[in-house]
Amino acid sequence: MADGLGARLETPLFEQLTLIGVGLIGSSLARVASRKGLARRIVAYDNDPDVRAKVERLALADVVSPSPEKAVQGADLVILCAPVGAMGEIAKTIAPHLAPGTIVSDVGSVKEAIIEAVAPALPGHVHFVPAHPVAGTEYSGPAAGFATLFLNRWCILTPTPDIDPEIVARVESFWSAAGANVEIMKATHHDLVLAITSHVPHLIAYNIVGTAADLETVTQSEVIKFSAGGFRDFTRIAASDPTMWRDIFLNNKSAVIEMLGRFTEDLIALQRMIRHEDGDGLFKLFTRTRAIRRNIIEQGQETAAPDFGRGVAKDTDEER
Amino acid sequence: MADGLGARLETPLFEQLTLIGVGLIGSSLARVASRKGLARRIVAYDNDPDVRAKVERLALADVVSPSPEKAVQGADLVILCAPVGAMGEIAKTIAPHLAPGTIVSDVGSVKEAIIEAVAPALPGHVHFVPAHPVAGTEYSGPAAGFATLFLNRWCILTPTPDIDPEIVARVESFWSAAGANVEIMKATHHDLVLAITSHVPHLIAYNIVGTAADLETVTQSEVIKFSAGGFRDFTRIAASDPTMWRDIFLNNKSAVIEMLGRFTEDLIALQRMIRHEDGDGLFKLFTRTRAIRRNIIEQGQETAAPDFGRGVAKDTDEER
Ligand SMILES: NC(=O)c1ccc[n+]([C@@H]2O[C@H](COP(=O)([O-])OP(=O)(O)OC[C@H]3O[C@@H](n4cnc5c(N)ncnc54)[C@H](OP(=O)(O)O)[C@@H]3O)[C@@H](O)[C@H]2O)c1
Ligand SMILES: NC(=O)c1ccc[n+]([C@@H]2O[C@H](COP(=O)([O-])OP(=O)(O)OC[C@H]3O[C@@H](n4cnc5c(N)ncnc54)[C@H](OP(=O)(O)O)[C@@H]3O)[C@@H](O)[C@H]2O)c1
Repeated sequence: MADGLGARLETPLFEQLTLIGVGLIGSSLARVASRKGLARRIVAYDNDPDVRAKVERLALADVVSPSPEKAVQGADLVILCAPVGAMGEIAKTIAPHLAPGTIVSDVGSVKEAIIEAVAPALPGHVHFVPAHPVAGTEYSGPAAGFATLFLNRWCILTPTPDIDPEIVARVESFWSAAGANVEIMKATHHDLVLAITSHVPHLIAYNIVGTAADLETVTQSEVIKFSAGGFRDFTRIAASDPTMWRDIFLNNKSAVIEMLGRFTEDLIALQRMIRHEDGDGLFKLFTRTRAIRRNIIEQGQETAAPDFGRGVAKDTDEER
Repeated sequence: MADGLGARLETPLFEQLTLIGVGLIGSSLARVASRKGLARRIVAYDNDPDVRAKVERLALADVVSPSPEKAVQGADLVILCAPVGAMGEIAKTIAPHLAPGTIVSDVGSVKEAIIEAVAPALPGHVHFVPAHPVAGTEYSGPAAGFATLFLNRWCILTPTPDIDPEIVARVESFWSAAGANVEIMKATHHDLVLAITSHVPHLIAYNIVGTAADLETVTQSEVIKFSAGGFRDFTRIAASDPTMWRDIFLNNKSAVIEMLGRFTEDLIALQRMIRHEDGDGLFKLFTRTRAIRRNIIEQGQETAAPDFGRGVAKDTDEER
């Protein structure tokens, strides 16, 4: 098929998929679930009435529910797609309304803190399989989602040891059918991996944009004009949703601080090389970092187009 | 015109443009000069015989010269497009062969160190107008260039006070005709502005890619797989040419160290907010950084397409 998602399933994997939170990630899940026929019925709830209205207007779900309690009734798969800090409360609210055997999952960007908040709130007769699709854009809300968001991206599952492997396999099939590659790991390891591949990069991006905004010797207008020298790359991820990212840093504190410590240590060594004009040391680092990008491109996680293909994207924009 | 560069000039601005160094920037200049008719004749020299052969094959210049001395003969505009560290030597080599009244310019990413290295080497009868087009990609070499590289980007001129304003105006016309917006400022100010908009961002990108490569708890393969969480954005600029960037850091030492000091100070404050779970402080920073990106997009220095329009670029790649 032209969108790369392949044919619609002949038999849905679930009877009713309920999504709690229908922003970028939740709405992308709704779209791909409907496009691929992953569930016979899609029910959605979001605590923002505007979002619920938009979801109706965009016809992203079969039913838009007025409450989380109602939304989960009849579901055999519930996926929590709200900010990390809201997951525990949502679990408490929906717990009494979950049918025995229901699979509860989530898409939160941190995993240990979510397990700690959600697992104890759920009844013993449901299965909790934490998940994190490593895919996104800098935009949020239901209009920003699209069905191919997860295509060729990785989704990490972090089930606790007590979960039946067959249940995990069902969640795995769901994500595979949505186009993702699935990897299973421990929640603590997930949090460490994501600290370096996502959380610290975001923190650094937010930080340099903040530093640039606070300068007295260089004006904001100069920063904007001359941003094509590299700075603008950082502003993309520093434009991500503030609530989402506040929650991530508050909930993955120790892994982020650990990775940040290493980053700062290395940066200070690099600063020392500059101060002492160690050209060879700089050249060595600048050479070895190229290999990683090559690998990321080869493994289909990045485009090889110069400048991320920005030119191409711009032309397309103008044609719209 | 379809490429956005507008009509070819009726009368060329210069008789002979000589380019010394024909990599990404030099070859893009050759392309736009020929596309727009900026000079009656384009002569090119590069100290790499392979590059010279490629420039011949791609027919980027009217003449590919076997030596810099020969290349500058007959030129009324000479632009040095070699790495920053090579500029001083090139100036010494060509100095005796420059005709009176010749304008010498460059495209180096730092300005004060280049003025110090180049100006004293040139004879009194030529005019030196240092320039820096703030445009580029992560690729290098003559095949990577394209005529629209400078279109809607800024080119900064940093003439010393002794230079005739009419001469500066001629260089300004050249860059305007190449599609760029021109700004004039002091070399020291340029170096400070670029330290924050380009040099420190590159340093940070190189650094985090290095930090990730050195981890023991997270494998390189995990870093690559899960790079779509943000990390891959940094690898683009960390794949830039090592020689070019070594030279930049060695030649803009004090401005880079100054800006890096501020960055690190801010980062440590941010780390402290995380440690003390100051959610409001984090939220505030993450909110105010969004405005800068909005401005960059509004001023035409960046695409508004989600994810830089990577998806669009990828499709194009696959069609090739
Ligand atoms: N964006 C990414 O790149 C990305 C990638 C992977 C995973 N994730 C994770 O995915 C989750 C959602 O992110 P997103 O990007 O989709 O965010 P989003 O676009 O901001 O959507 C989140 C939605 O959840 C709603 N919500 C908040 N609290 C709720 C509650 N108690 N009950 C029901 N709905 C609630 C929000 O409504 P309000 O308008 O009231 O806030 C909003 O509409 C987060 O946990 C995030 O960590 C994000
Ligand atoms: N790339 C960017 O994003 C960017 C943006 C703005 C400004 N600049 C500046 O533009 C200049 C060129 O950068 P670039 O990206 O075009 O680099 P590039 O693609 O690597 O090209 C530089 C070329 O100059 C040649 N060269 C080196 N020393 C020389 C010498 N003594 N005489 C003649 N040619 C020599 C190199 O040959 P070898 O193969 O022998 O090295 C190479 O072919 C640098 O000063 C850089 O700071 C770059």
